Amino acid sequence: MSDKVKYLLDESRIPKAWYNIVADLPVPPPPPLHPGTLKPIGPDDLAPIFCPAIIEQEVSAERWIEIPEPVRDIYKLWRPSPLIRARRLEQALDTPAKIFFKYEGVSPAGSHKPNSSVAQAYYNQQAGIKKLTTETGAGQWGSSLAYAGALFGLDVEVYMVKVSYQQKPYRRALMETYGARCIPSPSPLTASGRAILEQSPDSTGSLGIAISEAVELAAQRDDTKYALGSVLNHVLLHQTIIGEEAMLQMADAEAQPDIVIGCAGGGSNFAGIAFPYLREKLAGRLNPKVIAVEPASCPTMTRGRYAYDFGDTGHLTPLVKMHTLGSTFIPPGFHAGGLRYHGMAPLVSHVLNLGLVEPRAYAQTECFAAAVQLARAEGIVPAPESSHAVKAAIDEALRCKAEGKAETILFCLSGHGHFDMQAYTDYFAGKLQDVPFDQQALDKALSELPQVDESAF
Amino acid sequence: MSDKVKYLLDESRIPKAWYNIVADLPVPPPPPLHPGTLKPIGPDDLAPIFCPAIIEQEVSAERWIEIPEPVRDIYKLWRPSPLIRARRLEQALDTPAKIFFKYEGVSPAGSHKPNSSVAQAYYNQQAGIKKLTTETGAGQWGSSLAYAGALFGLDVEVYMVKVSYQQKPYRRALMETYGARCIPSPSPLTASGRAILEQSPDSTGSLGIAISEAVELAAQRDDTKYALGSVLNHVLLHQTIIGEEAMLQMADAEAQPDIVIGCAGGGSNFAGIAFPYLREKLAGRLNPKVIAVEPASCPTMTRGRYAYDFGDTGHLTPLVKMHTLGSTFIPPGFHAGGLRYHGMAPLVSHVLNLGLVEPRAYAQTECFAAAVQLARAEGIVPAPESSHAVKAAIDEALRCKAEGKAETILFCLSGHGHFDMQAYTDYFAGKLQDVPFDQQALDKALSELPQVDESAF
Repeated sequence: MSDKVKYLLDESRIPKAWYNIVADLPVPPPPPLHPGTLKPIGPDDLAPIFCPAIIEQEVSAERWIEIPEPVRDIYKLWRPSPLIRARRLEQALDTPAKIFFKYEGVSPAGSHKPNSSVAQAYYNQQAGIKKLTTETGAGQWGSSLAYAGALFGLDVEVYMVKVSYQQKPYRRALMETYGARCIPSPSPLTASGRAILEQSPDSTGSLGIAISEAVELAAQRDDTKYALGSVLNHVLLHQTIIGEEAMLQMADAEAQPDIVIGCAGGGSNFAGIAFPYLREKLAGRLNPKVIAVEPASCPTMTRGRYAYDFGDTGHLTPLVKMHTLGSTFIPPGFHAGGLRYHGMAPLVSHVLNLGLVEPRAYAQTECFAAAVQLARAEGIVPAPESSHAVKAAIDEALRCKAEGKAETILFCLSGHGHFDMQAYTDYFAGKLQDVPFDQQALDKALSELPQVDESAF
Repeated sequence: MSDKVKYLLDESRIPKAWYNIVADLPVPPPPPLHPGTLKPIGPDDLAPIFCPAIIEQEVSAERWIEIPEPVRDIYKLWRPSPLIRARRLEQALDTPAKIFFKYEGVSPAGSHKPNSSVAQAYYNQQAGIKKLTTETGAGQWGSSLAYAGALFGLDVEVYMVKVSYQQKPYRRALMETYGARCIPSPSPLTASGRAILEQSPDSTGSLGIAISEAVELAAQRDDTKYALGSVLNHVLLHQTIIGEEAMLQMADAEAQPDIVIGCAGGGSNFAGIAFPYLREKLAGRLNPKVIAVEPASCPTMTRGRYAYDFGDTGHLTPLVKMHTLGSTFIPPGFHAGGLRYHGMAPLVSHVLNLGLVEPRAYAQTECFAAAVQLARAEGIVPAPESSHAVKAAIDEALRCKAEGKAETILFCLSGHGHFDMQAYTDYFAGKLQDVPFDQQALDKALSELPQVDESAF
């Protein structure tokens, strides 16, 4: 095995296509449904909020989708992202395991999100769109779309989950530096926001609410479209560049992962690192254990139901079949804002349901402890979201130690925590508590799931 | 010329030695003086605060000093740092100039500072030292030493200039994440701090005061040494890895810089990018214009005097000959905390005095405007310090446009601004004012410079 610390690739080796797992699934994924009729929708139903090229990707079953040259040109600013062998963490853990991580925090916005925001901004600009609306939780997606908007001359309006808006003023400042407008959600600017504020004036918001606000605005104007930062097929597609690059780099490292790990909020960075490996697994060429990690306080995969549900709280979006806590479930305001979504990407839910992926949930304080351990060994301070993947990687490395196995672990470090340092301050001050899970709230939200007759399609 | 965006180097190409400009200077630099006797000091005089290997580097006239393998191993986590062709900025400026920047923000602490902190922590650990004290302005150095301390198992105590401590809570959180202790300076923990607090209870601090505090503590204990983040010869030496790598990368880009730019607070990142090019200039192999950029509100090089002065406010350090505003000058609390030092590195002052370098001063708001222009073109949000180099690069590119010249510009982007976003928020809110320079305060501070008879040595 190679003894390098860091596996770089020349920009000429940025993959030329994204990978679409739909082409290789043994069972096709269930179709999305119209929110009014509860019948399968077609591409036309998405036209009010997405431009044609995005819709085409959303419904595509092509295995490879070419990355446009202008998008690859922008990727070159930070891609290929480095693959790093975490030797110092291995030493600190005294484990025989080999730990590699793919570090997406080198992007301008500090996470994997620009992999999709740049692509989405490009396609919208090509379609003559002038403005994009979106939501953001932790702020990773909002700042990534703000960045992409600056590159392609698009106005960007970001509805930021209120609890994050308040906790992360630096994220707002970053969006504004890129020229975007950032609004706390729920806001009085939309019917969806006003409806929530009437019921709960002190609402700290949720991704589901913020999505409703952004979608509502986009549907009202021809020159405005909506951009989603996770969950949907086309977003997961764009993120597969992470796994495709990782495969090239693992080959350079003369190693193959026995375990592939990603944190999963909406599911996009997880899909990014995992789907290319699932292709190899489905084809029988590799057989890694694939782990999706979520927070114990928003446990979509480990406690949710695999069912049709709305993507948003305002019920403006199509229904998709996914692991969900119910669109009326509002998770507690813990710090990993990017993992506070009530659902999970339909494609991630589908592969979970097929038994291809192992879900796992961790409490936030044990994730911060893992993050600090990584920071003191490797220097990088992870985003709170990414710390869930770090925790799983450390746990697997310790299992290897207990079992005396020299397995190879690959995880996606989806972003840095530079804009989340208040959470670290709170952690060190003992202010972060692991909130007991509210099973009653979950039961109530699940009882409100829409009734869908799946036998009809 | 190559048409790539990003010039990477494999970690095997990290330079094996730092470059010591002292070996090539046409006139030797003036010696440092003992603060009591005002006579030239020897290595022994530095022993209370520095370990032997550091002192040896401080006084060395060897051209190349080998980088220890354990230090190169840590450098591999982020080095070689990328050289980036700022094509989008060129397009935005519509200039025929070619703009390259060496991006040091990829380090774990987000700036060039770990190039020296890792080396200093290594040598101190080898010497059996248990604890390092230091000062920090913007927090870049403090967090870099905190990081290095975590790697080598050293306790780190950071005296942070109070105005920065208050403005940058996230920097503090970063230091604490790495396990260091961060104290606002002036503090009641030292005689130097108490003396300032008696005179000015509301003092917002200065690097000169913070240095006094850290030096005082180090001098009191055998197992504790002091670590300086700029100014001294050994620090500038460690930073030359920036310029050495840039030369390899410019060769890969099939280009040579006509202009080399760095911002200069204490002078270390400027020296890092510039000294290797000054070697080539002195040898007649290259002839770039070399520009050192400072803030108009702390204009050491453009308004200071080239004279012997103390490095700190408490007058505990040796005197060095440098461009200085006087050790009693306290610059206004503007946001580029890393550029608030009253003096300039003796070696940078020396090459300035020899006419090898062109100094330039900019006001802070024009630097923020330049920083925003870079962010919207290239994605990277610069540290306020680094924005001074960005401003100079843009000005040179616009001069090239006016003159119709396709010159090649290379600047050091010494760090990102992720921990400085409050300054951007203030800038957008119109809260940043360019404070008129206080000439009276300067005159007073200069009148208090120590009287040194240079004819004696």
